Amino acid sequence: MSDTRQLALDYVGKKKEKYLSELKELVAIPSVSMQEEHEKDTLQAAEWLAARLTKLGMENVQLLPTGSHPVVFGESIKAGNDAPTVLVYGHYDVMPIDPLDLWDTNPYEASQKGDLLFGRGTSDMKGQIIASLAAVESIIQTSDLPINIKWLFEGEEEMGSPSMESFLPQHKDLFSADFCLNPDAGMIAADKPTITYGLRGLAYFDVYVWGPNQDLHSGLYGGVVHNPAQALIELLAGMHDEDGVITLPGFYDSVQRISAEEHADMEKLPMDEAFFKAQTGVSVLWGEPDYLPVERVGARPTLEVNGIISGYTEEGSKTVLPAKAMAKLSCRLVPDQDPHEVHEQLLKYMRAKAPKTIRWELKLINASPPAITNLDTPAIQAMSKAMQSIWGVKPLYRREGGSIPIVSFLKDSINANSILCGFGLPEDNIHSPNERLYLPTWYKGIDSLIHFFYNIM
Amino acid sequence: MSDTRQLALDYVGKKKEKYLSELKELVAIPSVSMQEEHEKDTLQAAEWLAARLTKLGMENVQLLPTGSHPVVFGESIKAGNDAPTVLVYGHYDVMPIDPLDLWDTNPYEASQKGDLLFGRGTSDMKGQIIASLAAVESIIQTSDLPINIKWLFEGEEEMGSPSMESFLPQHKDLFSADFCLNPDAGMIAADKPTITYGLRGLAYFDVYVWGPNQDLHSGLYGGVVHNPAQALIELLAGMHDEDGVITLPGFYDSVQRISAEEHADMEKLPMDEAFFKAQTGVSVLWGEPDYLPVERVGARPTLEVNGIISGYTEEGSKTVLPAKAMAKLSCRLVPDQDPHEVHEQLLKYMRAKAPKTIRWELKLINASPPAITNLDTPAIQAMSKAMQSIWGVKPLYRREGGSIPIVSFLKDSINANSILCGFGLPEDNIHSPNERLYLPTWYKGIDSLIHFFYNIM
Repeated sequence: MSDTRQLALDYVGKKKEKYLSELKELVAIPSVSMQEEHEKDTLQAAEWLAARLTKLGMENVQLLPTGSHPVVFGESIKAGNDAPTVLVYGHYDVMPIDPLDLWDTNPYEASQKGDLLFGRGTSDMKGQIIASLAAVESIIQTSDLPINIKWLFEGEEEMGSPSMESFLPQHKDLFSADFCLNPDAGMIAADKPTITYGLRGLAYFDVYVWGPNQDLHSGLYGGVVHNPAQALIELLAGMHDEDGVITLPGFYDSVQRISAEEHADMEKLPMDEAFFKAQTGVSVLWGEPDYLPVERVGARPTLEVNGIISGYTEEGSKTVLPAKAMAKLSCRLVPDQDPHEVHEQLLKYMRAKAPKTIRWELKLINASPPAITNLDTPAIQAMSKAMQSIWGVKPLYRREGGSIPIVSFLKDSINANSILCGFGLPEDNIHSPNERLYLPTWYKGIDSLIHFFYNIM
Repeated sequence: MSDTRQLALDYVGKKKEKYLSELKELVAIPSVSMQEEHEKDTLQAAEWLAARLTKLGMENVQLLPTGSHPVVFGESIKAGNDAPTVLVYGHYDVMPIDPLDLWDTNPYEASQKGDLLFGRGTSDMKGQIIASLAAVESIIQTSDLPINIKWLFEGEEEMGSPSMESFLPQHKDLFSADFCLNPDAGMIAADKPTITYGLRGLAYFDVYVWGPNQDLHSGLYGGVVHNPAQALIELLAGMHDEDGVITLPGFYDSVQRISAEEHADMEKLPMDEAFFKAQTGVSVLWGEPDYLPVERVGARPTLEVNGIISGYTEEGSKTVLPAKAMAKLSCRLVPDQDPHEVHEQLLKYMRAKAPKTIRWELKLINASPPAITNLDTPAIQAMSKAMQSIWGVKPLYRREGGSIPIVSFLKDSINANSILCGFGLPEDNIHSPNERLYLPTWYKGIDSLIHFFYNIM
């Protein structure tokens, strides 16, 4: 191991408390991008990061406007043309915190309990941002940066990155890099470093059904007016058959088959039925019986009801026939599905199935294509070696069920592949109450990033 | 026409403003029985009525405790044993006002616009209570009451009268009467006085479905965990077949067939497809194709989703796999269905259909049997004659789709039939935003009640 590398590792070893306290500062900013009431907070998180990049010694630090929340940029390109250029990605926005009553601590006041740090964004992904900053700062403070580095922090990932598809092509030169380091994907377990090579895409919809002019008395009109809640429920129920197979016309046509080799690899992952039961608390799993659980979340598409509301939902027996009903539904997509094609399929389904007794509207509010990365790229090999140095074992390679739209957009705009890693764990409750970060893994993650930056020289 | 009768009619003709202002006072008390925050308001409405009965000259005025909101009682039994005793029924509670943003006026500040008075309870049924009080007061102020009269104002009708079934048998002597006047049923149109001889019953349920321990990330777990919203939706959707027929086992077994004679009568009612479309704003009606619309709301049972909620329902694309889902559903029942039998049928359905991948619970929160009254009773004839005196036409007889539990409970406890009438109109938006009362019909209603009390002597 080179001396400079060890100097950086020693440096960060002494600064754990400092980086933990920086993470707490960032968590305290409620940057919920999808809620208008948090617009100023979201901007404040961007400004906090711009100041942090300046303090780190980055140049050309700026907030770039998008159609939505700004992108934070900064760079250090003093390593010269022969050194590789890494674009480090992060998103400074977080998910809404509701239902708040299920949190045991204040979601915006990071609270440490033993090895766990609780708070919104601790794992997804303010913790990962601070880890990247800590790794680069440790190198800069103890030596010269051996590579060129650029930073891209977006503020709309939790909204599905609606501006990024048009934003990136307008700033190709600024963001040009050999590849992107994206630590927004987690690990399978604390002792199992993980590299994610596949991501599911997303097509997210709002669907509205309208019936009578206004809420009606269910006694006076029940039996002659189609209840919009019932109509919506029947439409949604018809989107799966009795085996859990999605019925939208053509939905599976472009789904890539899982090869025998990949199936064999997936079977070896420590993510069996027992794993998913333990993670979720359910006693019986659900889904396509012909596929492994890990295939169902990584390599098979889904259609999910994310929310539904209609009528009276408080205490008591209000006998209302509601005037309208609304649901939020989304499909997780796999190669080679296209979210806009799925939108068309859903429109076709609705046109064929929606009864004349109601009016309806379908809105695509979020679209992100699926992605797969080649395992042979030098950057993935550098990360694999870095993880081995810290954990002593080879990383696991997996396809992840989540969607990271920026991965496709970076590939399309600046032709950069993304190295998907991250130091969060499945039990971190991301997007849920009591989100948390397991600190021992987080510290190891910082060390492995230091190795990574040296490995790719 | 007797002189005394005319004196009473003349008296009320001069006091229109007084009774209107009393109605406004009562509407201003937000007596929403099913919401705990309005518990004091609901009591205040009871106290207001007790004071009003005292002012009217009633004796033995009292608030009787129930398991829920109190019953207001008062009587005048000076007409002697040979005169008939009428129990006048009313409910002083009202439905919740949500969604408040759809009201054009303050629901608790009755606002007159031309012939219409807007406000919660104006039609259902504070207006009908004031009409009864006005009719009796007009007689008392101008002559002697020719009959014995008792008052029963309950405060839990909009909750389904949960205490009345056990309350009434405990107070048989106090409430004993020859029959009950219940003006909680409306008119078909302003020029069509109406007597309701059939009511649907009600069985109202809360149904809960639970899945994972907490809300999950739909990307990480979608495909292996049964989404409780989807499970609930599939269960609810299966409760009707494609023709709108209810699939609960045995649901129709005890439903009385509609006789050819009754079918012919119903066909003559001015409640055709166009009527229901105009009332509700829908362009196509729904329901069992083999039955008239008026049969479907009056003489056929229904199963209705009154409310449903699960997951994320705000703006944006939160990709959550919800931990739980809840729906409120209710059946309108017809003779000889029994709400407790329907509860058993729904339990059977859930036990047979609910998948092992979720947990569920079903709660019966409101039960009321259906009712039918004989048209030949003298009291119905007295009302028919009274309506003819005022409107110049014979009243229409109909079966109504709503449920009035007190009707069955009075029959069972004190063997009193109910004369179901009322001076509200289908377009009054009862249970909905912008509830209103059409004043010309209301004033005619008061006059017809004066005739009624004289007719039954």
